[in-house]
Amino acid sequence: MSQMNGAESLVRTLVAGGVNVCFTNPGTSEMHFVAALDKVDGMRCVLGLFEGVVTGAADGYYRMLETPASTLLHLGPGLANGLANLHNAKKAGSGIVNIVGEHAVYHIGYDAPLTSDIEGVARPMSHWVKTSPTSKTIAGDGALAIQAARTAPGQIATLILPADTAWNPADGIAKTPAAPPRVKVSAEAVKAAAQAITKGEPAMLLLGGRALRRRALELAGRIHAKTGAKVQGSGFNARIERGAGIVQVTRVPYVVELALNTLKDVKQMILVGAKAPVSFFAYPDKPSILTPEGCTITKLAGTEDDIEAALEALAAEVGALSTPPVGVAEPNRPALPSGRFTLDGIGQVLGALMPENAIVIDESVTSGRGFHPFTVGAPPHDWLSNMGGSIGFGTPVAVGCAIACPDRKVIALEGDGSAMYTLQSLWTMAREQLDITILVFANRSYNILKGELANVGAGNPGRKAIDMLTLDRPDLDWCALAKGHGVEAGRATNLDELTKQLKHGLSSQGPYLIELVM
Amino acid sequence: MSQMNGAESLVRTLVAGGVNVCFTNPGTSEMHFVAALDKVDGMRCVLGLFEGVVTGAADGYYRMLETPASTLLHLGPGLANGLANLHNAKKAGSGIVNIVGEHAVYHIGYDAPLTSDIEGVARPMSHWVKTSPTSKTIAGDGALAIQAARTAPGQIATLILPADTAWNPADGIAKTPAAPPRVKVSAEAVKAAAQAITKGEPAMLLLGGRALRRRALELAGRIHAKTGAKVQGSGFNARIERGAGIVQVTRVPYVVELALNTLKDVKQMILVGAKAPVSFFAYPDKPSILTPEGCTITKLAGTEDDIEAALEALAAEVGALSTPPVGVAEPNRPALPSGRFTLDGIGQVLGALMPENAIVIDESVTSGRGFHPFTVGAPPHDWLSNMGGSIGFGTPVAVGCAIACPDRKVIALEGDGSAMYTLQSLWTMAREQLDITILVFANRSYNILKGELANVGAGNPGRKAIDMLTLDRPDLDWCALAKGHGVEAGRATNLDELTKQLKHGLSSQGPYLIELVM
Repeated sequence: MSQMNGAESLVRTLVAGGVNVCFTNPGTSEMHFVAALDKVDGMRCVLGLFEGVVTGAADGYYRMLETPASTLLHLGPGLANGLANLHNAKKAGSGIVNIVGEHAVYHIGYDAPLTSDIEGVARPMSHWVKTSPTSKTIAGDGALAIQAARTAPGQIATLILPADTAWNPADGIAKTPAAPPRVKVSAEAVKAAAQAITKGEPAMLLLGGRALRRRALELAGRIHAKTGAKVQGSGFNARIERGAGIVQVTRVPYVVELALNTLKDVKQMILVGAKAPVSFFAYPDKPSILTPEGCTITKLAGTEDDIEAALEALAAEVGALSTPPVGVAEPNRPALPSGRFTLDGIGQVLGALMPENAIVIDESVTSGRGFHPFTVGAPPHDWLSNMGGSIGFGTPVAVGCAIACPDRKVIALEGDGSAMYTLQSLWTMAREQLDITILVFANRSYNILKGELANVGAGNPGRKAIDMLTLDRPDLDWCALAKGHGVEAGRATNLDELTKQLKHGLSSQGPYLIELVM
Repeated sequence: MSQMNGAESLVRTLVAGGVNVCFTNPGTSEMHFVAALDKVDGMRCVLGLFEGVVTGAADGYYRMLETPASTLLHLGPGLANGLANLHNAKKAGSGIVNIVGEHAVYHIGYDAPLTSDIEGVARPMSHWVKTSPTSKTIAGDGALAIQAARTAPGQIATLILPADTAWNPADGIAKTPAAPPRVKVSAEAVKAAAQAITKGEPAMLLLGGRALRRRALELAGRIHAKTGAKVQGSGFNARIERGAGIVQVTRVPYVVELALNTLKDVKQMILVGAKAPVSFFAYPDKPSILTPEGCTITKLAGTEDDIEAALEALAAEVGALSTPPVGVAEPNRPALPSGRFTLDGIGQVLGALMPENAIVIDESVTSGRGFHPFTVGAPPHDWLSNMGGSIGFGTPVAVGCAIACPDRKVIALEGDGSAMYTLQSLWTMAREQLDITILVFANRSYNILKGELANVGAGNPGRKAIDMLTLDRPDLDWCALAKGHGVEAGRATNLDELTKQLKHGLSSQGPYLIELVM
């Protein structure tokens, strides 16, 4: 048997370290890695036709399985194309191992066309960056990258693989060191939180990260029942477990005035895997900080801590461990509505038809803000939102969720503006026959920006401004776009047609796209 | 009249500085800038639905007009999505003024979802980066950005615009300082080049940048006639003027063996706006440097120098100023071929039908390498190639060329793999009714990689490797993709159908896409 090369030692290290999927968009400098993927068993390879698909898919994969996938990207520009969804993944606390090809080390100095500062490109969106200088170091560096990606809550690790590091002889694979376990929060932190919520002042537990899983929510519901402290979710969350039988939470609204109103009476805020709430953007004469003046903020646990244990300790501290939780959602599906489109009506159709164990990826932007009340009584499901605010996250994350959970139905809610950034995802859905139903809310505009233009006080928009906020002239034809990527599609112009289309999509195997002509 | 704000002072500074086009993909933090664009006359705004369209369009615009356009990008992730085509533009020596929105300065510390290290994202692909801290500084910083973008051969200037810098009151506009003029090369450099090519050893002028314009080519042809020094173009070039009546050049081939063979006898190489030739990628057991051992390399002029004057001085030095040039292309169009697709046949159809003053954007990758001989006798035209090697440059650059030169026909030659990275360009072509004919070579694969996998010695590919290099299962339907973006399209499965389709496309107004089913 011939000696393995660096690429093979890396692939075998990844597989041994539990990294079993590679979302790829390779180029010449990655050909030895491709050959190694081909040779080694245990790594599923999923091709994306644009790098934003690849990195977003790795984000979705991690959100569902909490184990990192790898990506394969082509030098600096390939990584650059994947950065926006790495940004989103980083903000979501998703662990990813990026493998980025690079010229052979001796070739870099010649400044060939694809030469760039790859580490510089990687750094803003990565927790861990390293160029592995030789074929003898790459297995060890790969193991460190896996460890970094597995570090709670999940980190972006970018390993740069020069071509000669890939093709020269290696010594074998490396064992991945264990990632540090999630930290138990201190008894003092638990006591401080307990004191804050039992002071007799209006209190709120603000939940994020793993605090939004079923068991943690149940603990929060018990604490709520015992102490009266409200339970609220962050504005955007990597994954909420919700539906009938699960303690429900509402989220801090996106619109600043609504958020201020939600939080206005809170005197004691306890952060549980959440950050102190701030506005998404700054606006003239509006505050950045959303908690009222005089509100005391106490951190119980960060996203990287053992959040469930922290809530359990807090429940014990306040004597709520056996208090029946309040806020458990009853099984309750809306009746199927009829007639012309309303946003509430669309939420009702969704709530009426969503199957058990659905994974909902919500990039519906302005259209979907009100869907939660209509879906909270549906059978248990997961709801995933964009944590980094860079649109184009939805369909790639749906790809990753479907690869992670092949037995669950994935539903992607997409604005037409946001879906356009990474529409190449559709092709990967078709090739892999992923069980994803995509709803595109075709309002022919960056609708959110019309509101924002008014919000910033920019006055009455003229033709040039309107043209920059609308996606009309020509209208995008989403059924044609889907067909072009090999995905079956249908159009709905009212709630009855949506019901019919959604039933069809949910009962089909493989991807199906529904264009909602709003 | 109310005082202008920072955004307005910047837009007025841009317009006064000769920046008259803004390729935009805005978000909330850019709403004041959008409002200012709306208010101020003299700036054409062109919306792209993905940032790679926006930055690539600015690249194409500069290549044709040699004056920078601006872009409008949404914070770090928006810039990140535009980086790959900024990389290509940087390598092409195109000047661009990027305006990147940022949170209000006081808001950055709150780490809202879209917060990232924007300067860090910008730096690897920019020559000039600045965050303008206040509404009083932004006009002056805008003027410096324009100056930087105008610095020869053209530079990437990235100006980061915090929201409060945009909305707070400004003092007025700033005057753009002149960019330094292109440097005349020294008499010593001219003498050294003249000595090298008159030594009696096999010599070659390697041309790049502005050396590939008509007048410079004529001078090179005169020098060739007088001294016997061969004239050769770089492998990839931002813009070649070519066609009947213009001195023709062949280019250094992409394939290493062919390049080595082209250069094997050269003893004296003179660089004229070109870099010393190196291989695009490194391969095991193949050289990076393409010139033979013992070849002396002499630099006459860099891309930033006054190249035409340098060639004129060299021609004078060797007494060639009135020598009739050799290599002038005769008017000569191929006969229209018939029958099944061959790459030569496609080149013949193109050569037979290309209109005078066509602008050809060549991202045909493997399909188009042999088109030059068939088109060199066509009426004068420009031929633009990818300088940075990041695919997805072609259709965005076509957008920019069509905006820059509305009276010229633009022809984009696209591999199906490469066209997918930035297919959203099609929508901008439709909205702006740009006169672009797109030929998509639908070979259903990253065909170049199949060769590269063999080149790197990676052996006989298996199913997993082949799947990563093919775009089939399902086939992309380019006519549907075009229709989805509002662009008319047709399909050709042989040379006769291509002739019909191309005639139709070239005689239409507005965009037309032809899918060549290879």
